[in-house]
Amino acid sequence: MNIALLPGDGIGPEVIAQAVKVVHAIGKKFGHTITFKEAITGAAAIDAVGHPYPEETHQVCLQSDAVLFGAIGDPRFDNDPSAKVRPEQGLLEMRKRLGLFSNVRPTFTFPSLVHKSPLKRERIEGTDLVFLRELTGGIYFGEPRGRNEQGTKAFDTCVYSVEEIERLARMGFEFAQKRRKLLTCVDKANVLATSRLWRETVQRLAPEYPDVTVEYEFVDAVAMRLIQWPKAYDVLITENLFGDILTDEASVISGSMGLMPSASLGENTKLFEPIHGSYPQAAGKDIANPLATVLSAAMMFEYAFELLDEAKAISDAVNLSLEKGVVTEDLAEGEVSYKTSEVGDWLA
Amino acid sequence: MNIALLPGDGIGPEVIAQAVKVVHAIGKKFGHTITFKEAITGAAAIDAVGHPYPEETHQVCLQSDAVLFGAIGDPRFDNDPSAKVRPEQGLLEMRKRLGLFSNVRPTFTFPSLVHKSPLKRERIEGTDLVFLRELTGGIYFGEPRGRNEQGTKAFDTCVYSVEEIERLARMGFEFAQKRRKLLTCVDKANVLATSRLWRETVQRLAPEYPDVTVEYEFVDAVAMRLIQWPKAYDVLITENLFGDILTDEASVISGSMGLMPSASLGENTKLFEPIHGSYPQAAGKDIANPLATVLSAAMMFEYAFELLDEAKAISDAVNLSLEKGVVTEDLAEGEVSYKTSEVGDWLA
Ligand SMILES: CC(C)[C@H](C(=O)O)[C@@H](O)C(=O)O
Ligand SMILES: CC(C)[C@H](C(=O)O)[C@@H](O)C(=O)O
Repeated sequence: MNIALLPGDGIGPEVIAQAVKVVHAIGKKFGHTITFKEAITGAAAIDAVGHPYPEETHQVCLQSDAVLFGAIGDPRFDNDPSAKVRPEQGLLEMRKRLGLFSNVRPTFTFPSLVHKSPLKRERIEGTDLVFLRELTGGIYFGEPRGRNEQGTKAFDTCVYSVEEIERLARMGFEFAQKRRKLLTCVDKANVLATSRLWRETVQRLAPEYPDVTVEYEFVDAVAMRLIQWPKAYDVLITENLFGDILTDEASVISGSMGLMPSASLGENTKLFEPIHGSYPQAAGKDIANPLATVLSAAMMFEYAFELLDEAKAISDAVNLSLEKGVVTEDLAEGEVSYKTSEVGDWLA
Repeated sequence: MNIALLPGDGIGPEVIAQAVKVVHAIGKKFGHTITFKEAITGAAAIDAVGHPYPEETHQVCLQSDAVLFGAIGDPRFDNDPSAKVRPEQGLLEMRKRLGLFSNVRPTFTFPSLVHKSPLKRERIEGTDLVFLRELTGGIYFGEPRGRNEQGTKAFDTCVYSVEEIERLARMGFEFAQKRRKLLTCVDKANVLATSRLWRETVQRLAPEYPDVTVEYEFVDAVAMRLIQWPKAYDVLITENLFGDILTDEASVISGSMGLMPSASLGENTKLFEPIHGSYPQAAGKDIANPLATVLSAAMMFEYAFELLDEAKAISDAVNLSLEKGVVTEDLAEGEVSYKTSEVGDWLA
């Protein structure tokens, strides 16, 4: 197993380091030979070589069976709207060039953490939904984008082709078939031309999956119902920007962003990353919660290597750490909390 | 006071009828002469004259001091992505032609309803935030939009000019000055060119309002923090589509969409509407919750006529109805609930 390691910015390196410990432990326990190759991205790469996704990093990813990714983003760039090179460009370029068109983001609750959620127990207990967010199209990539000559107007373009929608939708139907057989297509078909193409395409495919019930909901309604009654959902498919907003929103259900993993699937490799960002305020302090990254490594065993026992060993360890309170300060109940590195050691 | 009445579709006519009763009662109590003029919109107008916002309706609105609007939308059109004329087009055309560039959506809690929220009491009690959603620009209106010739690709365009951003942002600064002096600019400046123009424009204006603290947050982060800790916000400004999603999301805080009013302010008139939609499943059953529309009438007295006592008389009546349990079935605690029309009568 060749794994590319992209720690990235902020807390990225610290949380990736814990995932590496855990993956090593799994390799030892189950007898796998695992090779890591590290490469730079994001602000770290801008600082080093002037580009947030260097060609060399791309080659490392292409030659890997899976990519473990930390986070990208640096406050130095956020409040400078005129910055020419931005860390996020690296993330987007990476997704595009690796063909990672489907971002799989599960949302579930942890029995020992339900009380931490801002939502009431009876609303969320047993939530088990998964978003498939389209990741290489839409307004994130559409052209033209920019300003008019005088700088008095800015524009972005949202574009979707039938093929882009179809491959994501088919993956959605297949996920639903393996789960509770409910697929929700989230769009804004009452306003957007692209959303109407989404809805039409999904409607056209539906008869091929007669065992799956398909629902169509507007993105504003989902933003509401996701909080009111998340248990109503099973598999949700949606375009890039809606997926960005809704999956972050959904992460509050579990009570902590620090817990939510994701997998990006597609053409050239598979990538696994926590959905939390680079959290620069915590960087270098050994306090960031590594569990989302460790659970992303579990998803890696499941989705990249189809090794379910290995995946389960990791998620069992995470559940145990939560039960025993071997957690970072964001999850600690009383006085006692652990460092990022201590949680990683314990899990390994 | 000349008020245009646009009941629209679904439950629109029923909830508007209750607001009319209440406005009449206020007129009587405070000695105002109030004239109503009704006009058609939405699916109702498509059925009657083939257009969802007929010219005659536009003239009625232009000649009014304020517009009371119900809801637009009909399921007959939702799952037919190829429909040529759609009710929502009427809503968008109305907003555009009336120059209603700022949609003001407050979110607050009702002491007697806090326990109804899916969120825990301590997270939401005392929430008092207001969104200013840009309403006549962005991807809702940008050109080009549509399909390529072969129908294999669809596209939408998001466009913003500095002036569009500036007038909305200035209104946001002014709202903040009259409130807790915190302004949050919600954008996706790490990805979108339009968002970078938003951020730049707000940054340029900020020094003119030195008493206001300005924060910049990404839309995905706000989708999360809005649920985690809504009390952190005061005034939020954002573009059309983000505002659509986030204000619906925010409505869950109060425990019921049936309660949230809105005002649309701008150039040619002012419009007041509940933020819930046409809710077709409930239409004609006399069960829809009229409170959001009645509170929209309260906002009308405040924003269109600057009559604060009248506005307060209405919101006091609504609070009393909640305390006494004179509510529709969606809010009823025990066996007893009231019809839409009965709640309207009681309030009046
Ligand atoms: C950092 C940013 C560009 C990115 C996105 O919007 O896709 C992030 O929010 C995410 O969800 O991975
Ligand atoms: C009906 C729809 C076009 C509308 C919108 O998206 O603006 C509605 O959701 C709203 O928020 O008023």
